[in-house]
Amino acid sequence: MNLLNDEFYMSLALDMAERAQGQTEINPVVGCVVVKDGRVVGMGAHLKRGTGHAEVHALTMAGAEAKGATAYVTLEPCSHYGKTPPCSDRLIAEGVKRVVVAAVDPNPQVAGSGIERLRSHGIEVVTGVLAKRSERLNETFNKYITTKLPFVTLKTASTLDGRLAARTGDSKWISNAAARERVHAMRHRHQAIMVGIGTARADDPELTTRTEVPGLNPIRIVIDSKLRIDNEARLLDTTLAPTIVVTTAQADRAHIAELESRHVQVLICGEGEHVDLHLAMRRLGELEISSILLEGGGKLNGAMLEAGLVDRITLFFAPKLIGGNLSTFVFDGFEKMNQAVTLDEVEVETLDDNVCISGRALYHHL
Amino acid sequence: MNLLNDEFYMSLALDMAERAQGQTEINPVVGCVVVKDGRVVGMGAHLKRGTGHAEVHALTMAGAEAKGATAYVTLEPCSHYGKTPPCSDRLIAEGVKRVVVAAVDPNPQVAGSGIERLRSHGIEVVTGVLAKRSERLNETFNKYITTKLPFVTLKTASTLDGRLAARTGDSKWISNAAARERVHAMRHRHQAIMVGIGTARADDPELTTRTEVPGLNPIRIVIDSKLRIDNEARLLDTTLAPTIVVTTAQADRAHIAELESRHVQVLICGEGEHVDLHLAMRRLGELEISSILLEGGGKLNGAMLEAGLVDRITLFFAPKLIGGNLSTFVFDGFEKMNQAVTLDEVEVETLDDNVCISGRALYHHL
Repeated sequence: MNLLNDEFYMSLALDMAERAQGQTEINPVVGCVVVKDGRVVGMGAHLKRGTGHAEVHALTMAGAEAKGATAYVTLEPCSHYGKTPPCSDRLIAEGVKRVVVAAVDPNPQVAGSGIERLRSHGIEVVTGVLAKRSERLNETFNKYITTKLPFVTLKTASTLDGRLAARTGDSKWISNAAARERVHAMRHRHQAIMVGIGTARADDPELTTRTEVPGLNPIRIVIDSKLRIDNEARLLDTTLAPTIVVTTAQADRAHIAELESRHVQVLICGEGEHVDLHLAMRRLGELEISSILLEGGGKLNGAMLEAGLVDRITLFFAPKLIGGNLSTFVFDGFEKMNQAVTLDEVEVETLDDNVCISGRALYHHL
Repeated sequence: MNLLNDEFYMSLALDMAERAQGQTEINPVVGCVVVKDGRVVGMGAHLKRGTGHAEVHALTMAGAEAKGATAYVTLEPCSHYGKTPPCSDRLIAEGVKRVVVAAVDPNPQVAGSGIERLRSHGIEVVTGVLAKRSERLNETFNKYITTKLPFVTLKTASTLDGRLAARTGDSKWISNAAARERVHAMRHRHQAIMVGIGTARADDPELTTRTEVPGLNPIRIVIDSKLRIDNEARLLDTTLAPTIVVTTAQADRAHIAELESRHVQVLICGEGEHVDLHLAMRRLGELEISSILLEGGGKLNGAMLEAGLVDRITLFFAPKLIGGNLSTFVFDGFEKMNQAVTLDEVEVETLDDNVCISGRALYHHL
């Protein structure tokens, strides 16, 4: 049974924030619970960029009960005017007595000033309650707000010998149903999904979100250095979701025009033979894409890893061995074992007979 | 808290059997507990081939108390003269009233006849108590006694992209200390350890058991089609453990003579360019090797898998990505995903930040 304490209410605020993952674009997910004299009097979450913040929804529900209440907020209340007025001012105006915060906002425009502002108005502020869970929930936001680069989650589904398909390309099915469902939920939670041209041509995927209940389709990004995408590719059907093709200055102009006429956005990133992936990430960040799910193939996985552009690695393994050489990661490789990219805060989950191993990427070769 | 029932005593008998794994050569591991009027009166396990069976040790300890007692035995008591007299006769002679058996003996010389013999003498026999655990404990025996072929456990320690080393060959260290300790315990529990000549030349390993307390060194087997083993190789130091080199009829006679002069046993298996692995397994079985731990490299792993000669697969993964192409399994690969070798009864274990995935090999391409 749960104890009655700060964690009890904060965990609900976090649960509410979690449900909004994938629908706030570049904004963080935030939840808020307002408690007065032993009763919950308000609940809210930030649901969509440009609309009310979590605190505003919760305080509105609380009405006059907010006076003298405790507000549990998963992220430090903002102190600046963005698309909405600062939440710290609203908490002050409503007469809230105590504010419990999970994580401090890494946004340089906030970063502690929201908490200071509350304290300067005599409000008791407690920080760090379930902070780690809140930080994890907003790991994409935390990177984007400080670097303006998208947070990249690399996902593979492979055999235990690290192959994406049989040598003939046959890959149906590697993963089990539980792992495939998980991948679709990941798509919903990322703003964009990215593949290399090899995968786009081999599988002609839609890269849409197919979940038990309706989910959001991410923006599709194709890394296509030589602009080899087929005009009939499903990815070019922008009625399903927006599509961005990233290529180089060497790409055929007529082909670019053709893609643009189909409402596909074409980004030129680099003058050389290959897309400049660092530049591509900067340009995608400028387009306000804060999170990308990278779904292969092996060459793009390898190149993104070598470039140090992957933030989280999530690998699904099916209990099979297939041989051949269609590997999850194709690159020359590092010279020494101690240069390997390592996974930090490793999580291991079994999904029936499949295993998911994930963690934050740490680089040692750069 | 444990209930007082058949499982309670049988689990002790299994614990005793488990401790003897690796020291009974081609014999099964067996434990026995004798219980009379609510008190344990005897305990025993089979400890070494050619010496007393579990029942004999336990009944000796029980002495006169055996009369009217219940005997818990992890494997059906034998009914034939082997190196020792039949245990079922001893149980009958001692006046045991009830015998509880975990697994039936798959040995075609026993296979139910031990149980029949007990019942024909009025002893109550219960079977199947913790049978699965007992069968698992003797999976190597169960294969060998029915096929005369060694049970092969294939073990790898790799990065998450399935590489055994960095592209330069550097592999120190892939696994963490917990995983390496586990591997050494596996060596103790197998009669022999097998590697390909590539691994023997690259790493010059000793292939001995290095555990916290002394363990048994397995027989070392090297698959060396062209007899390229270096005369200075540590594996040729037979003071550490016996060594068997498996080669072909094409091997240089003088080199064979040199190896034999160092007390290395040389097996000729096949006339062609490569060792005939099926023949090698038959010959090793004839030498009374009932269990082999296969420790790579990638080519031998691939070839053994293609030949369907691997029984159990145990893969240790370190949370790293290294690139290159020194893969855990090197073979052409199957055409279709549904021909992949699959792992059955998958077990997933985390060892700090390493993960061990293991299971029985099921073949679909043969």
